[in-house]
Parts: sequence; structure tokens; C-alpha cells
Amino acid sequence: MSKDKAFVTEITPQGEDFSRWYIDVIKKAELMDYSPVRGCIVFRPEGYELWENIQRDLDRRFKETGHRNAYFPLLIPESFFQKEKEHVEGFNPELPMVTEAGGEVLEERLAVRPTSETMFGHMYAKWINSYRDLPLLINQWANVIRWEKRTLPFMRTSEFLWQEGHTAHEDEADARKETMQMLDVYTEFVESVLAIPVIKGQKTPSERFAGAVDTYSIEAMMKDGRAVQAGTSHYLGTKFAVAFDIKYLSRENTQEYCHTTSWGVSTRLIGALIMVHGDDRGLVLPPKVAPTQVIMIPIGPPKTRETVIAKTDELYAQLKAAGVRVRVDDRSDVSPGWKFNEYEMRGIPIRLELGPRDLENGVCVLVSRVTGEKKQVPLDNLVAEVQRMLDDVHDEMFARAKTFRDEHFFSVETLDELKAAFEEKRGFALAGWCGSEACESQVKEETGATSRNIPFEPAETKTKCLVCGDAAAHTVVFARAY
Amino acid sequence: MSKDKAFVTEITPQGEDFSRWYIDVIKKAELMDYSPVRGCIVFRPEGYELWENIQRDLDRRFKETGHRNAYFPLLIPESFFQKEKEHVEGFNPELPMVTEAGGEVLEERLAVRPTSETMFGHMYAKWINSYRDLPLLINQWANVIRWEKRTLPFMRTSEFLWQEGHTAHEDEADARKETMQMLDVYTEFVESVLAIPVIKGQKTPSERFAGAVDTYSIEAMMKDGRAVQAGTSHYLGTKFAVAFDIKYLSRENTQEYCHTTSWGVSTRLIGALIMVHGDDRGLVLPPKVAPTQVIMIPIGPPKTRETVIAKTDELYAQLKAAGVRVRVDDRSDVSPGWKFNEYEMRGIPIRLELGPRDLENGVCVLVSRVTGEKKQVPLDNLVAEVQRMLDDVHDEMFARAKTFRDEHFFSVETLDELKAAFEEKRGFALAGWCGSEACESQVKEETGATSRNIPFEPAETKTKCLVCGDAAAHTVVFARAY
Repeated sequence: MSKDKAFVTEITPQGEDFSRWYIDVIKKAELMDYSPVRGCIVFRPEGYELWENIQRDLDRRFKETGHRNAYFPLLIPESFFQKEKEHVEGFNPELPMVTEAGGEVLEERLAVRPTSETMFGHMYAKWINSYRDLPLLINQWANVIRWEKRTLPFMRTSEFLWQEGHTAHEDEADARKETMQMLDVYTEFVESVLAIPVIKGQKTPSERFAGAVDTYSIEAMMKDGRAVQAGTSHYLGTKFAVAFDIKYLSRENTQEYCHTTSWGVSTRLIGALIMVHGDDRGLVLPPKVAPTQVIMIPIGPPKTRETVIAKTDELYAQLKAAGVRVRVDDRSDVSPGWKFNEYEMRGIPIRLELGPRDLENGVCVLVSRVTGEKKQVPLDNLVAEVQRMLDDVHDEMFARAKTFRDEHFFSVETLDELKAAFEEKRGFALAGWCGSEACESQVKEETGATSRNIPFEPAETKTKCLVCGDAAAHTVVFARAY
Repeated sequence: MSKDKAFVTEITPQGEDFSRWYIDVIKKAELMDYSPVRGCIVFRPEGYELWENIQRDLDRRFKETGHRNAYFPLLIPESFFQKEKEHVEGFNPELPMVTEAGGEVLEERLAVRPTSETMFGHMYAKWINSYRDLPLLINQWANVIRWEKRTLPFMRTSEFLWQEGHTAHEDEADARKETMQMLDVYTEFVESVLAIPVIKGQKTPSERFAGAVDTYSIEAMMKDGRAVQAGTSHYLGTKFAVAFDIKYLSRENTQEYCHTTSWGVSTRLIGALIMVHGDDRGLVLPPKVAPTQVIMIPIGPPKTRETVIAKTDELYAQLKAAGVRVRVDDRSDVSPGWKFNEYEMRGIPIRLELGPRDLENGVCVLVSRVTGEKKQVPLDNLVAEVQRMLDDVHDEMFARAKTFRDEHFFSVETLDELKAAFEEKRGFALAGWCGSEACESQVKEETGATSRNIPFEPAETKTKCLVCGDAAAHTVVFARAY
């Protein structure tokens, strides 16, 4: 439908400059705007509503798995970060510091939270006395700040929104079970709601969360072949429990340290869904989180306008009552063609066209954003047809993303092969790795790619390290990452 | 039911020390805990869920009135506060300042937001071009910080959670309509959901929001007779539009300043609902926001336990399916009496008792938290009976709060009468006021009471100023306030 060249060319084609395409699309679709504060964006309503829909769905999953929400202070005493050695090393360089308040210099400087393991740790030590208080399963929806040097809207911003789950358990087994459970919750959510296929696996030690014993992640492939860590889940062992003295009276009447976990996803999921699904015409939004799922556009000459609009309103009410997020654009000062382009750019999953001829025949036309397929459907079965097409759009989006990922997933034996592969194509590479940090660093230096994770279910098992040629301890996914 | 004296005496009686009662109750019911940061609390799950329920209901009302949510940066350049003279005077003394980030001293200091008129103003100036962009109706759910000298959990904390609506309009009439509409939304919410009767009115100039032309509030009476401002709505005129250059091309093709509004409620609503409804046995939670609406307690000797618990589970499933927030406490290591006290203290609106005799008779017992009334109801009509009792509890709570307020509302002619009234009783006083700041200040100095608002519908109209005796320009509600 997008014949209006003047319109389309406002968006840089993906093949020409993917980064430009991304910025063009998110600005034009009014998902965000730059703010006057370095690296901080404004989440405009169209962008924020994506986050609200993500939140609603995830929040339900957290509650179904026994978690409750709470809210902990934004400001954290600087000394808290000193208590866990690795944690302070990881986060200190990024902390914004409140040094004055109410016109006075503070005795102890307060960090704006970059993550809340320390504050949760401090409070958990007060609340947990015996095994009866365990497991303690709390999640927090919050803003956090990490003073990033290079930022990219949604993907990496100084302030971002996220959820952080923090749990305390009696023993390692229970904490590890939680860690994996939440990784599974994220996987299920990202695949079945955002239509993004992910690779589940364990991070290598150099990519671990600062202070974790083990970090697990789900990794997604963007359309430029780069990786996005879409969610992480950490088993923290007793490290934070020792640092903050989170002890409990065990069933055997002894004092023991808790085993803790933390896990989070952030507004970078918005960036991911845009980069996975978007095309040269603009956004393609997953139906399950799209603020508007169906845009209704009445068409035809002025003399039939009233009748068509009356019917449109009636169908709108039907769809809305069925829980479909639907909008009508019945403006007469812009052409249907302009509207078609506009809502394609905005990524609305289904366009519904209704004209006087359709009305006579008791039908309307549904157009899928992802395939462009047009389908004439009977009006008396509209709700079911729309719901079916929303499901189809989701399935098609997932299938396309998976096909793209499979086509950009290559297997290499040596560093030279990896370099050659990254030179001629974009994507993820599966390779063997001996487990040494030196070999991992060399890959990064020479290719810019980092180890994304050690997948739980690699397509094949590698036997030799791509760098040193020694026996491979792990099969690793390497990619350039956001 | 609360015969267990050892238990009850853990809560200071309201009549003995209301402030102590308040702290005892919110700590014991695990609504909050103190944090290591001055004046900041942790919202524990039982407290935070009250906020989640408040949010859900208000958010629906905001969306139904055409608003959308967005998210604006936490940190605001210090210079923004200088742009509106009254605004800076009002907020500067309370601003926490980020002066370093990422290990470097910032060129411009960044304030942690106390409210976001300035940041919205800056962005609105970019987004608004013509009358077609108006009205612009955006709300934000966020954390804010005001470095308060004296704090009280929920009521006045350094960091709190709130929503702030910010809207821009073509003219004064439309902006004033919005200001009043949102005051009405708050009134309807606080009365019909939190069961708190409020007095709607306009703030005197000295109590206006810093930078507003007019501020309106709803005021509620706590059980110690003090007032809580439960919500405010401001007509900002063109003050912020001039400060931030929010202009639009009018229908007449001229450049005009927008008229803006802002309005907000915060987590102090949690404090208000506790202080309005609580009693010497603990919390009394309004059914519409109570995290748990019904607590089910199976009772009877061990040999019938299995049968009773099986039936309890069945009824639990029925209630849950009907949307009732219900929990079961089937622990056998604590007595039913202990549980009765515990859940009364926690303010759960309905207790459901089910024993073997009840089961034989096909009934159970519902106990209202607010009246203590016990009602035997048939099990085959349980859902309807529970829903009816939840409505009754709400109505009873509202009626009691209103009766209390009416009984503590007195009418005075002079400052001496006001002083005498405040000495012998607690409550609100209606009095005439000439409109001078001097007279208003004198009331505050001599009684500690401030003007709460000029009610839209005063019970009577006063003709003389309580201080100077001149003709009254307004009839004002005076009270000591949180």
C-alpha cells in the first residue's frame, strides 16, 4: 500500500543504515523523545504504553509464581556498595551521587540506585529470622540510573525502567530452582508475548552480574545481527547474605546464611521488539503488547460517509467489548492512503477498511501489517476473525524472527573463520571455547564480539577452542551486542 | 472477639497516643519499615499492594477521561527551577542534588524531581505546535523526593510515590474545566473506593501550589481530628507556559500561550485510609483496596479437619473465580483465636469461619471487621453473600467516617472561640475570613491550625472574619494538618 514515496523516504531504509532507521522510526512513531538530561529519554505515551502492556503481563506471571511487589528507597548510602567487593567494582563507575539535600551537604553521600541488591539485603537481614520466613519472594518495579557513556534510546539509557526480583532461600537448591524458574518465565514471556525467539544459557564468568555466582540470560537477535540480552537471572549464592548478614534459624536450630537470587528485565525490551520486528515501512508491533491492535479506517465518497461511519462505530463497540484494543480514524481531512501509510509506520497489527460497497455486501477488509495480506471477512463474524488474525500476526512475526535468526546463525571452528563470517554477514556464531579469559578477550579485541552465553541447548557441541585450539570446555554463542 | 489481652496491648490505644497507635499498627501489620535513608520508608508488600489497588482504580479513571501515561526523567537541571519564580521559591529548599556522576563532577547540578511541571513544560514546548495538538493530557506514575525536615510514614516521607497529571489547553476555560474534572475524579475515588468523605474547596493564596494561579483540594479528617490533603488540582494559568515557552498556533492563526494544569495524589492516601478507619484493634481496610478481602479460617477438632479443609478449598476456589481477593489460613499450629486477632489487626474486611457443624448445616459464618457483626449464611449462596457484605462494610465505613467528621466539625465566630474549641475537642472549624494574610497567619500562630480550604459547599456562610471582625470574604475550614 505504501506508494507515497515522499512519506516512506522519511525513514532511512534498514539496509542503508540500521541505526538511523531505528532512530527515525522511534522518533516518527512518537515512542520517545530526547530529554535535556544526558542519556535520559522521555517515554512518550505510545512508547510507555508498550511498557505498561509488558508490565501487566509480566506482573501476572510474577504473582502466579508466588512473588509480591514492594517498593524500596531510590537513594542508597554509598557505604552499602562497599560491602560486596565485586558489586562495588561493577557499579561504582556508574553511580550518580546525591551530595546535597535541602541546601545542606550530606554526611554520607547517597547513590541513586543502579540496582537494589544492597538495599534489599539490608532489609532482608531485618525481616528474616527463621526458616518459616523463607522463601522471601519480592519484586520491585522501579527506575534505576547507570551513568552510561554511550547511550541509545530504550537499549541503553542513563535512567531506565525495570523490574528487579530479589529472593532469599534456605539453601542452594531452592535458590537455583528460583533462578531457573524466572529465566523460564522471561523466556515464555518474550517468546509468546513479544514474538521474539531467544537463546537460553549461562553467562561466562567475565559477563556475570557483579556479585553473582552464576548469571543466566536470554539472548535475542536484532535485524542487524547484533544481540540483545533480553533478561537475566542470577544465583547470588551467599555472597550478599554474608555482606548484609542475612541469616536464619534453620530447621536444625542452627544459624545459616540465606542463598539469594535476583532477576530483571527492563525497558530495553521495547528496543528489542522494535529491532527484531520492524521493517522499512516502520514499526511492526507484536499484537499482544501493541497499544492499538486494530485501526479502523472508514472509506468512500462523502455521500456514503454517514452510513459507513455509523457502521464503523457499531463494529468498534463490538471489538472493544471483546477486549480488542481498537481505534477509529474517521478524519476527513486526510486521505485513506495517507492513513494507511501512517498506521503501517506505527506498526499497528491490523488495518480494518470499511467502504460503502463492503457495507452492502456485509463484509470488510482486514489487512495484516506483517504480511500485507488482505482478507475480506463477514461483518457478522468480525470479532472472531480479528482475534484469529491477531494470533496469525503473532505467529507469523515469531516465525519470521526465528527464520531470520536461523539464517544468521553460523558455526565456526577458528577465530579466523569467525572474523571472516562477521565480515561477510551479520549474526551469531557458535564456537568452542576452552574457558580461559585470555581467549575470550582475544575474540572481543579482534572481532568486537562478546560471548553472549553458553546455550543450554546448542545446535551442536564444539570440541576445540576457537582461539587456542585446546579442548573446548564450553560451546558458546558469540555476537556483537547492544 | 479480641479477648487475648496480651495481643491487643501491643497496640497503643488511639485515645492514649494517636501517633503511637499509628506507628504500632503500620509496623505490626507489616505495611512499612524504616529504611537506612533519612525519612525514606520501605513499602512492604502489604502496604505496597494497597498502593497497587489505588493505582489500578485511579489509572482506569484517568484513562476514561482521556489521559495517557508517560514517563519523564527523574533528574531535572537545576536551572529549570529558576524559570518560574514562585516555583523555585517553593521547592528549592527541599531539593536533593546530584552533583557527581560516573566519578565526575557535573557541569550543571541535577535535582531529583520533587514534581515535574518544569520537565513537562520543557517537553510540551517541543511537542505542541498548533491547536490541533491540544488538549495534551498526560499523566505520570513516579517517585519524587522532597527533603522534608519532619517525616511520618506514608503521610510525609522524603521519597514518596505519586501520580502527577500535566495538561495543556487552548484557553482558560478548557484548562479550568480540566482542573475541576480531576478534582471530581479524586473526590469520587476517595469517597467511593477509600470510603473517606472529603471536603472539596479552593486553597487560600498562602496554601497554593508554588506557581499555581488557583489550587483546589479535597480534605479529609483523621480520627485525631487533624486534616489530610488527600488530593490537589491546580490551574496554572499561563505561568509555566510563559516560563517554558509553550506556545501554539491558534485557530485564528496567532501564536498563543497554552493554559496548563497539574494534579496529583500520593502514597499519603495510604496514611489517610489508616487514620480514618483504624481502631484500637488495628487496621480497618476499605474492601475495595484491601489486599485480602476475605480471610477463611477452618475450625474444629482434628478428626473433622480434613473434611472442613476440603470444603474450605472448594469455597476458596468459588470466591476467587468471582474476583474476590481471598486467602485461607489453615495452619494447625496456631489457634483460631490467635488468627481472629491477627486478621482483625490486619484489617481484613471479612472473616469467614467454617466448622464441622456449619458444614453439616450447609452454612458458614461471616464476620464484619467494621461492625463485628456475625452472620450465618448458606454456602450455596456464598459468593453473593460475601459481595453484599463487602458492599455493606464499605458503606458502614463511609457512614462512620462521615458521622465522626460531622461530630468533629464546629462553627466559630472568633479566634477565641476557635482556640477554646481546639482545646476541648479535636476537629475542623468553619469560620469567616476577611482574606488578609495577616489574619490567616495569626490563626496559625495562635492555634497551630491552617486554612484547609474554602469549601465549595459550606454548611453555612460566615459574614465576619474570625480575627479582625471585618466583613468575611470567604468561609474557610481551619484545622491542624498532617
